[in-house]
Amino acid sequence: MTEVCYKFDLATVYVSDAQYNRNSVFDTSPQTVRLYLLYNHWFMQTLVYVFIIVNLALALFEDPAVVPLPIWATSTTEIICLSAFTVRMIHYAKIIPKDKFWKDPKNICIIVVITLSFIDLTIYGALKSTGYFAIRWSRVLRPLLLVNVTEGRQLRRAFRSIRNALPQIAYVFLLFMFSVLVFSLVALKLFGKRGLLTIDGSPYFTDYVDIVFDLYVLVTTANSPDVMMPAYNYSDSFTIFFILYIVINIYTFMSFFLAVVYSNYKKHLKEEVRQLVKARRFKMCRAFSLLQEARGEGGEPVVTQAKWNHLVKLIKPNISIAHRELLWSVLDDQNKGHIGKFAFVQLADLLSIQVITVKSQPHPIHICFPSMYNSPVSRFIRYVVHHRMFVHVYDLIILVNAVFIGLDEENPVVSNAEWGFLVLYMLEIILKLYATEPRAFFARHHFWNWFDTIIIVSALFGTIINSALKHCKCRQILDIVFILRVLRLIRLVDTIKRFRAIINTLIKIGPTILTFGQLIVVVYYIFAMVGMELFKGKVQFFEPNSTSPDQEYCGNPLLKGTTFAKLNYCKNNFNNVVSSFIVLLELTVVNQCGFTAVTHISARIFFIFFHIVVVIIIINIFVAFILEAFLVEYTVDKSDLQTSLEKKIEELELNVQHFMDAYQHSILVLLILDAMESNDNELGPSEAAKQKPSLMFKIASRRSRTVDGLLQRMFETEIHPEDFEEEEPENINFSNPVFDSV
Amino acid sequence: MTEVCYKFDLATVYVSDAQYNRNSVFDTSPQTVRLYLLYNHWFMQTLVYVFIIVNLALALFEDPAVVPLPIWATSTTEIICLSAFTVRMIHYAKIIPKDKFWKDPKNICIIVVITLSFIDLTIYGALKSTGYFAIRWSRVLRPLLLVNVTEGRQLRRAFRSIRNALPQIAYVFLLFMFSVLVFSLVALKLFGKRGLLTIDGSPYFTDYVDIVFDLYVLVTTANSPDVMMPAYNYSDSFTIFFILYIVINIYTFMSFFLAVVYSNYKKHLKEEVRQLVKARRFKMCRAFSLLQEARGEGGEPVVTQAKWNHLVKLIKPNISIAHRELLWSVLDDQNKGHIGKFAFVQLADLLSIQVITVKSQPHPIHICFPSMYNSPVSRFIRYVVHHRMFVHVYDLIILVNAVFIGLDEENPVVSNAEWGFLVLYMLEIILKLYATEPRAFFARHHFWNWFDTIIIVSALFGTIINSALKHCKCRQILDIVFILRVLRLIRLVDTIKRFRAIINTLIKIGPTILTFGQLIVVVYYIFAMVGMELFKGKVQFFEPNSTSPDQEYCGNPLLKGTTFAKLNYCKNNFNNVVSSFIVLLELTVVNQCGFTAVTHISARIFFIFFHIVVVIIIINIFVAFILEAFLVEYTVDKSDLQTSLEKKIEELELNVQHFMDAYQHSILVLLILDAMESNDNELGPSEAAKQKPSLMFKIASRRSRTVDGLLQRMFETEIHPEDFEEEEPENINFSNPVFDSV
Repeated sequence: MTEVCYKFDLATVYVSDAQYNRNSVFDTSPQTVRLYLLYNHWFMQTLVYVFIIVNLALALFEDPAVVPLPIWATSTTEIICLSAFTVRMIHYAKIIPKDKFWKDPKNICIIVVITLSFIDLTIYGALKSTGYFAIRWSRVLRPLLLVNVTEGRQLRRAFRSIRNALPQIAYVFLLFMFSVLVFSLVALKLFGKRGLLTIDGSPYFTDYVDIVFDLYVLVTTANSPDVMMPAYNYSDSFTIFFILYIVINIYTFMSFFLAVVYSNYKKHLKEEVRQLVKARRFKMCRAFSLLQEARGEGGEPVVTQAKWNHLVKLIKPNISIAHRELLWSVLDDQNKGHIGKFAFVQLADLLSIQVITVKSQPHPIHICFPSMYNSPVSRFIRYVVHHRMFVHVYDLIILVNAVFIGLDEENPVVSNAEWGFLVLYMLEIILKLYATEPRAFFARHHFWNWFDTIIIVSALFGTIINSALKHCKCRQILDIVFILRVLRLIRLVDTIKRFRAIINTLIKIGPTILTFGQLIVVVYYIFAMVGMELFKGKVQFFEPNSTSPDQEYCGNPLLKGTTFAKLNYCKNNFNNVVSSFIVLLELTVVNQCGFTAVTHISARIFFIFFHIVVVIIIINIFVAFILEAFLVEYTVDKSDLQTSLEKKIEELELNVQHFMDAYQHSILVLLILDAMESNDNELGPSEAAKQKPSLMFKIASRRSRTVDGLLQRMFETEIHPEDFEEEEPENINFSNPVFDSV
Repeated sequence: MTEVCYKFDLATVYVSDAQYNRNSVFDTSPQTVRLYLLYNHWFMQTLVYVFIIVNLALALFEDPAVVPLPIWATSTTEIICLSAFTVRMIHYAKIIPKDKFWKDPKNICIIVVITLSFIDLTIYGALKSTGYFAIRWSRVLRPLLLVNVTEGRQLRRAFRSIRNALPQIAYVFLLFMFSVLVFSLVALKLFGKRGLLTIDGSPYFTDYVDIVFDLYVLVTTANSPDVMMPAYNYSDSFTIFFILYIVINIYTFMSFFLAVVYSNYKKHLKEEVRQLVKARRFKMCRAFSLLQEARGEGGEPVVTQAKWNHLVKLIKPNISIAHRELLWSVLDDQNKGHIGKFAFVQLADLLSIQVITVKSQPHPIHICFPSMYNSPVSRFIRYVVHHRMFVHVYDLIILVNAVFIGLDEENPVVSNAEWGFLVLYMLEIILKLYATEPRAFFARHHFWNWFDTIIIVSALFGTIINSALKHCKCRQILDIVFILRVLRLIRLVDTIKRFRAIINTLIKIGPTILTFGQLIVVVYYIFAMVGMELFKGKVQFFEPNSTSPDQEYCGNPLLKGTTFAKLNYCKNNFNNVVSSFIVLLELTVVNQCGFTAVTHISARIFFIFFHIVVVIIIINIFVAFILEAFLVEYTVDKSDLQTSLEKKIEELELNVQHFMDAYQHSILVLLILDAMESNDNELGPSEAAKQKPSLMFKIASRRSRTVDGLLQRMFETEIHPEDFEEEEPENINFSNPVFDSV
């Protein structure tokens, strides 16, 4: 490898690290740089995720299993996964300097988890083969790999948010528990000696521990009026106790938890993003110093266009020439042929901006049958399709369709009407395809066009298959057809501007909701593993048509006569991973604890602990995130957050033109570059091409899509753009794992 | 009235308007100023509140009544109340210029409510006396008087917050309802034809309107697992539908509602406070211009100390000389004998600061028996009492006491131990009174001292009375004694510093929680009035020992076999105001709607509407308020918010000394003015008095106690202090009523 090659490789690593906010500190020897490039290759990263998913999915096949597999099969799979993680770890150790590697608790956590898993596997195998009872306790540790092994920085950050908020939450929680304990003591003294009975005839509020538990459950609102009814029936004035309890413990303390979590989340997020921005800038400066050359005597160091082109090609191998030229022209706005440090640093941001190349081409029918396409009838059709009334007419059709969907589909009029609607929808798509160039219609960002077409075409196929197989009455196909029909109605939302704004915010929040999805999976997985060990097989579900006498008490005599059995909750059990997850979801919504009847009373601790972790902490973090996202979206003035880069792009912009297409609401900026026309346009200058420049750049900033992006911008505007810190930021180690304090 | 007198009166009005943030625009004729002073007299204001409470309390005595009174009695009371409001209105009309009076929708609202009430009373009386059926519909309007008549600016502001957030909430709500409707349609298509049955045997998800209602109730989490169980029992995969529903509609949309309410609340609050600060400054400038006189040639106008003293005496008739001198020395820090506009404007803020005059005096025992008080034993006792360990020992005693409280009090050991604890607590108070000067011990701000003494002395009396009347077994006295015993435990909170911080925040939030209490009363009252008309007498409650066969279905055959009757919810009815309020509280916590069984199905609208108003809007406003209060408390740097005034006070401060008293945590600043000593100190210089200056000023800013106060400071630091707007602020009319858009 030549020296130049190495320099470019290293610069590539720095730039892409800056682009993806990676924070590993690696040796800068040529060998390591190659290894590091391999380590961050998308294929390797995907592979790790696949192994993690396989490892987590093992819970489906291990006892208690949804689909039972022999132990040798699950063990072998687990060994393969663990080996893969070990290899990945060794690969990482080769890149990172030894001392840094062992200082990073993330790595130690992974090594510990892998070691413990191997030990557990060996013990379990040995015990099982000799016929002893054994527990796969290391399964609880599996989700830690998802948190630590992967590139899931977002997930780690969420965990760090929680960890930082923990001390404050703990204090409020202790005070809250103190309040619950004091209220319970008052309840014991007030109601205990009165000989009141609950609805199932048991004594009311006579045992202190039971009272504490009942009043804690009241906070989750699960037993809301029931717990109060005996006292209320006895005397009106006792409600004062419950009113005070509800106001103080439900409303005030629960809001306090949210406030604590939110204020911590906010503070922490700002600090992290600020440091991210600093770290990125530092890396870009490193990359610059690798490629810089002195210009003139005493002139500032610069990077030439040739070197820059080479670098960009290395970072994004499949970038189009036009796109690269565009980026360069944004940076080098005075056409000097070289750029300084200030411009170079912006490359990472520039590469994050998603640029979709849309070639404006005449309609295929126009090319084949120009006279027909330009005939008055054809022109009129195109005029009608692009008219606003066309959209409104179809909105009306959708509304009428909604009514028909609600009607009984076994009525022949209704089922025939469905064919009519399908034809109308197909006609709409065909007309639009006639009026709009097909490649533009199906451009990647035209969400609603794709949505419509997929829904309608699938519904068409489904309906055809369904009527072909009318005698088989396949519910699955019919279900899908029904759902597809209802989904068509969603398009109505898009026609009302205010709804669109809300939907757009929801879409922007989308990616981060996925992070919370992962967080929930991690927590649910751990609780499901523990719950399965505690409760598996205690509650049986019998198929509705079963005639077993055990059915009415879920196969467990302890449940005889309980509300749990009466309400037919038997399927809410921990007998496999899937039902465990569903029970945990139900517990998240309303914490009901029928399970304590089948095991020791101390199992309540499991439910209380779950409530604390999921409802008090995680749901509040989620709400805090949505609050912050909403506030950033709605109250921060976007123009203040426009990066210097976007301003430059706007200056460069020759002609902003909004598509007349009614479906196109997501356009941010349209960049039309006449200069590029000669390079890429292979078509001869036609009439249509003269009207519009043939190559357009649409800039839909992907970074601004997420709250993170907006926050990053907020801090970028705060940090002076010329202010480059040459020294490495001190607190650069973001990839700290979450569990270092555990 | 002399011209000078009039000027001082007018200045007094301006300053106290500024101090209490009143915003009435009144005629400035001498006659009106007198009337205005009378209008704002505390007695008149209290009287209005009394009449409003009486008017609202009439619901207790009107049919359906808790305590039935004849119609003539309630009608006469109502006529007296309405007359009082009319008189108050006429008084107000005399003060305010005619055109301003009729432009203010608040006044029009009151006049309309009074007129309608009189009309309703007449019609009702006429119909009742001729034996016809009649409804007192104007009772719904009564809470509007609470909102509009009184000086309840906070309440009106809360209503304005709601009104401003309404359009945005409406859009999110419509989208949310669209989502519920679409999900319901999918549910109808998926489950409707499968012939599933709910737990009580009725068909599951077959009627569209029922599905919409069930899924709406799912959002309130009231029917959480039940609504899903039939589908889940049929097939695991149907849970996907419910998971999506829960994630989208419960978590995302509910957080969105909070976010919308919060962002509006924040925006609105800032704007209002900004304008309040402006208006206050404007009024102070007016007052200054009344009293100013030119000093020297071309010098700036000033107010002399004599005039200032006279003004302060008029505003606060019972202010001490020392206090007034202190205020003057803060304003006139260079001892010029006159102050300029800039200093004068701060008077309103200065008067809002609560100054407690604490005279440092030797202990009474010290005066009577100096040798005994200074004996080594006495010194040792005082040393022990002030020692930290003394507090810890008593904390331990409280903990042990807590265990004893939890034990069965019929055990003689436990009941005798109670006497021991009482003696220990009494001893503590006596020892503290011995070690601390009694007047300092019982100073107004020593919350915990007061708390302890009252609780212990009451418990002592209660226990004595209880053992004296042992044979009568009076539960009431025993209940009170028990509660007092438990309340003692609360003192534990005060010993842990972090808890104290949280408690202090809660106490600061306190006053504004009262505003929300009023808001809730207004909304509950309106819903209770409507609910009583709709549901009164439909559900009967029978005493537990009643033998009526109707008891098991709450006296209404329609409730036979429903969960409502089975769970013995009969007392949850709308048969009088008190039970209506309790039902509404239960509906706030978990929206359960058993009542729909006894009336038409459309009664569900009542419950859904209640959920929207109370849970989606008001509870969210409450949470938003706590969030903001918490963020302001914890994240805003207090030193930035220190007014220039407080800085001056600190500069003036000669010696800051923290009391060694362990109970004294609430001290903000101790101001010790040696200069004042000669004026007020009648005691000869004793040894103790030499150690401490004898007159101390403790400044506990009352304004900073509320979030409003903190916010006002935030904006005061934003508005440049020298920036006086002479012209009247445009949008000064804050007292706009809430219902002008209704």
